[in-house]
Formats: sequence, structure tokens, C-alpha cells
Amino acid sequence: MLALTILGNNSAIPAFGRNPTAQVLQLQEEYFLIDCGEGTQLQMTKYKIRWSKINHIFISHLHGDHYFGLIGLLTSMSLLNREHDLHIYGPSPLEHIIDFQLRVADTKLSYTLHFHAITFEGLIVDENKFTVHSFQVKHRIECWGFLFKQKKKPRSIDPVSVKNFDIPSSFYERLQKGEDYITKKGAVIANETLTIANSPIKSYAYCADTIFDESLAEKVQGVDLLYHETTYLKESADKAAARFHCTTEQAGNIALKAGAKKLIIGHFSSRYELLDEFLSETMEVFENTELAMEGSCYRI
Amino acid sequence: MLALTILGNNSAIPAFGRNPTAQVLQLQEEYFLIDCGEGTQLQMTKYKIRWSKINHIFISHLHGDHYFGLIGLLTSMSLLNREHDLHIYGPSPLEHIIDFQLRVADTKLSYTLHFHAITFEGLIVDENKFTVHSFQVKHRIECWGFLFKQKKKPRSIDPVSVKNFDIPSSFYERLQKGEDYITKKGAVIANETLTIANSPIKSYAYCADTIFDESLAEKVQGVDLLYHETTYLKESADKAAARFHCTTEQAGNIALKAGAKKLIIGHFSSRYELLDEFLSETMEVFENTELAMEGSCYRI
Repeated sequence: MLALTILGNNSAIPAFGRNPTAQVLQLQEEYFLIDCGEGTQLQMTKYKIRWSKINHIFISHLHGDHYFGLIGLLTSMSLLNREHDLHIYGPSPLEHIIDFQLRVADTKLSYTLHFHAITFEGLIVDENKFTVHSFQVKHRIECWGFLFKQKKKPRSIDPVSVKNFDIPSSFYERLQKGEDYITKKGAVIANETLTIANSPIKSYAYCADTIFDESLAEKVQGVDLLYHETTYLKESADKAAARFHCTTEQAGNIALKAGAKKLIIGHFSSRYELLDEFLSETMEVFENTELAMEGSCYRI
Repeated sequence: MLALTILGNNSAIPAFGRNPTAQVLQLQEEYFLIDCGEGTQLQMTKYKIRWSKINHIFISHLHGDHYFGLIGLLTSMSLLNREHDLHIYGPSPLEHIIDFQLRVADTKLSYTLHFHAITFEGLIVDENKFTVHSFQVKHRIECWGFLFKQKKKPRSIDPVSVKNFDIPSSFYERLQKGEDYITKKGAVIANETLTIANSPIKSYAYCADTIFDESLAEKVQGVDLLYHETTYLKESADKAAARFHCTTEQAGNIALKAGAKKLIIGHFSSRYELLDEFLSETMEVFENTELAMEGSCYRI
């Protein structure tokens, strides 16, 4: 199961009741917080996200609308006596920002915080059931996108088939790894006959804040769910480029070129009160698009 | 006119829809922001406080619930192209926190920010119509209270009286300064006969986060409006002392000893959902008390 909950969808200044960027990705039983604009701790409470489930936080870049809520969340977790470790991945200066603010407050966190400075494109998290890769996106300052992938699960034993063919249970583990079974008489029973393939792995890519950059499509090729920013409508392509942001049309083009299955758009400029044109303009290029609406959960 | 608008009244973690500490004090046409917990920019918008009116911000101490909203407010003001100068008064490490976060974001503010580190008890702002004094309060880390005072206004000319006594208008300025008028024949016409006293000066004291400290009462003696924290109910006096905070009863005692005209209590612990006992317990000691309720404006 892969589910993305939007906690904020606005760029720069909060406006029209819209909050700055923050998202929670659920990948099976793991929860990831992606960016953490001011007020994220309140948004998590509002949308019933259990803080204690978050063990990994990813910060794309150090513009305030993507991380000013982090220090408040970290200290609140400590006030609630969190005990288990927390991992943060982000640009290296973030470590000093956190440490300095904890130090002047004479605060010792109740849990161990591991800060991982992102310094390269590639595998940054490799756990039992998922991986996270970082990739560079082109913004006014250092900025990272993230690709979250489930790991391929082993095949499941087919209980009817193993009984029919009288396979000893001591061989089940090897079956799950993909081996064929060879009978005492030398007959080969194919693995596919004895096992069931599990659901295919799911993936999510978060492209953060970026100028229109076609090379992104390769980096997130074939992703199931793609988040791409659309700060502006297509008529403002010049303004978007000048500010290292994208339009609806450009986001649609990246999704198309990446062969993404579904596109979520967000990071709307505070100049727009209504969002319907964001959706219609993007859908003209890439039909399976949805607006990143606060509180909404997109499951695949 | 002195008016205090409460933007947040909770301590530590936001709870029950209550936000961390922030207040706006209006003294005639001047607006002061006092503390700035996370989400203050949103609270100002919600309660229709014009950001551009704020020229002075006072930060009592560097626990997050009193300043984590500051950096967001400062950058949002810049995104809205504020042009006039802004003055911040607070503990010295705050300057680095602000500067470092602006630097890593490659942000140059649209306005000039003057940071004034508070290093002593006494006069920290002296403007035409008001003064602000800092005073130390006893908390777990360096912490400052603030005393805001209107300046004494000159007396007003009594238009009927000056006409009756035939006072030349060239003498009006001296009358306003308090001089008596002496006629050509040597008769003294008392200043009080010719002028009207203006309304008495108003004052407001903000006591920030503090352990019970009777010496505070001297520092804010005779104040019109006193804000004092009541993090806990009186049954939790031990816990309050251990955490350098106060109870209802203690706040009432300070107000009584200071001869304050009115007391506002706030900074309620997140363990309490209901606040009625805070009011009743404090009123047992000091009757003219009100709860700091978000969005409420207290005028004197």
C-alpha cells in the first residue's frame, strides 16, 4: 500500500487558508514526512497523522516554506517523550540550524536524532522493505528530489499446489527465493507452478521546487505516483523560469515523458485563490492528474 | 489608547486549538509584537492585524513556543515587499538564528532589519510617544520581561479660559509646558486655570515565563495592565517551581503586590483542556483578572 497525504500545498506565503509544503507518505507500515513548512505539527494533528509513526523526515531545500515547521515538530516530539530514533535527511546547513536552536534553548531531546546530510544523487536509505534515492533538482538554491520505492517482495507459497505436488515444507524458503523443485525421480516442477507472484512494487517521486527540467523525467522514469510542482499557470512561464519554478503545462510534460501512472500537482502561488485552472491546464497534457489538496489522501 | 490582542495563549505544545505565545500591543498608533510562536503570521491574518503596522518585535526568550514563528513572519514580510525598517529586541543568539537562515536561503530582505540584543535591565526603546523597559525574569534560560509606557503628554490649552484671560497665542507653547501666565500688571494666572490635563499615561507589563518571583512586583509597580503567566493550577505549585513556571495563585499575588489595575493570565499547560479554574483560582486572589483568550482584545 502506498498512500500520500497532503498537509500543505501553497508556495511562499500562506494564503487562502492554504499552508506551506508538507506531505506524509505511507509505504506499507512506514511513514515518511516530506518537507515541513511552518504549522506542519498542527496540520498533522488536524489530519490525524500519528506523530510517533514518523521515523524518517526528508527536507528538499532550505527555503522557509519547506522547513520552518521542522524545529517545532522536533521539540514537540521531545516534549511528548518520544523514545525511538528519528532520521532527518536534508541539505547540510540544516544540521547547524537544528543544533543551534536546541542548544540556546538548553534542550536535550528525549530521543536520538540522526542527521544525514545529502551530498550525492543515489541511494540514501536502504531498509528491509523500501529504498529512498535522492536526485538533484534545479532551483535557486541546492534542492533535492526523492524517489521512494518498495522492495520486491518474495513470491508466496501456493498452498494448494504444494500439497498437490507433495513438496516438503523444508523447501518452502527456497521456493520463495524463486527455485524450481526437483523430485527424487528428477522431474522439474517450475517455481511458477508452486508460488504466487506478489503485487508489483510501488514507487513515489517527489520533485520539490524546480525549474522546467526534462532530465527529471529520466530520474523518475516509470514511477507510479509523481508529485511535481506547478507554482504558476501556463501563461506565466516566463515568471516561472525566472524564479526557478514550473507551470501546469511543464509539470504535465514531465509526467508524460516519465511515463508516470499518476500526477499530483501543488506548490501553488499565493497570487491564485482558485485552483481549477491548475487542474484543467495540466490535464490537457497529462490526464491522470489531481490537485494536491490539504487533508486529501491519494492511494495507489 | 492601549489595547492588547492575544494571538496565542498555550505553553510548549499546541493543544486544544490553542496556539503558542504571541501578543500584539497597540499604544496609540504604534503596534508591538510581543513573542512570536509558530503560526503567528497565520494568527495575525486570522485576527486582522495589519502586518505593516508592526515596527517593533520583542522576544522574551529562546524557547521555541515563544519565537519559532519569527523567521517565517520576517521572510513573509519580505515576500510582501515591506519597505520600512523593522526592529527586533531579544536575547543575543537570536541574531545568528535569523541571519543564518536567511543566508542559507540566499534571501536578502526587502527591508532593513535592526537587531537589538538585550543585555541589561532598563530603557531599551525611547521614542516620541512611548518607552520600553526590559527587566529580567527568572526562567530556565535567559528571559526578559517588557514594560511599555506611554509618555506624558503636554497639557492642552483651555480655549474658553485663554480667551477670557486674553492670553496671547504666542504664550500657548509655554502654557503647554506648565508655565503660569503673568500679566503686565504682575498678576499670576495659574497654569491649571488655563490648561486641561490630558488623560493619564497608560502602561503594560509582559512578564514572560517565570518562576514565582516577588521582586517582579516592584519592577512593574502600578502598571495599568499586567500579563503574568499561569502555566499551572495552584495544586501543581511544586511542578510549576521545578519547571520555572507559575500557578494561578502566584500570578494573582504578583498582581496584588504590584498594585496592577488589571491582570491577564495565559501560557496554559497543554495538560488542561478547560480554563475556567485558571480564572476562578486567580480571581480569588486578584479580582480584576481575565483569561488571555486568542483573538480577544483587552482595552484600557
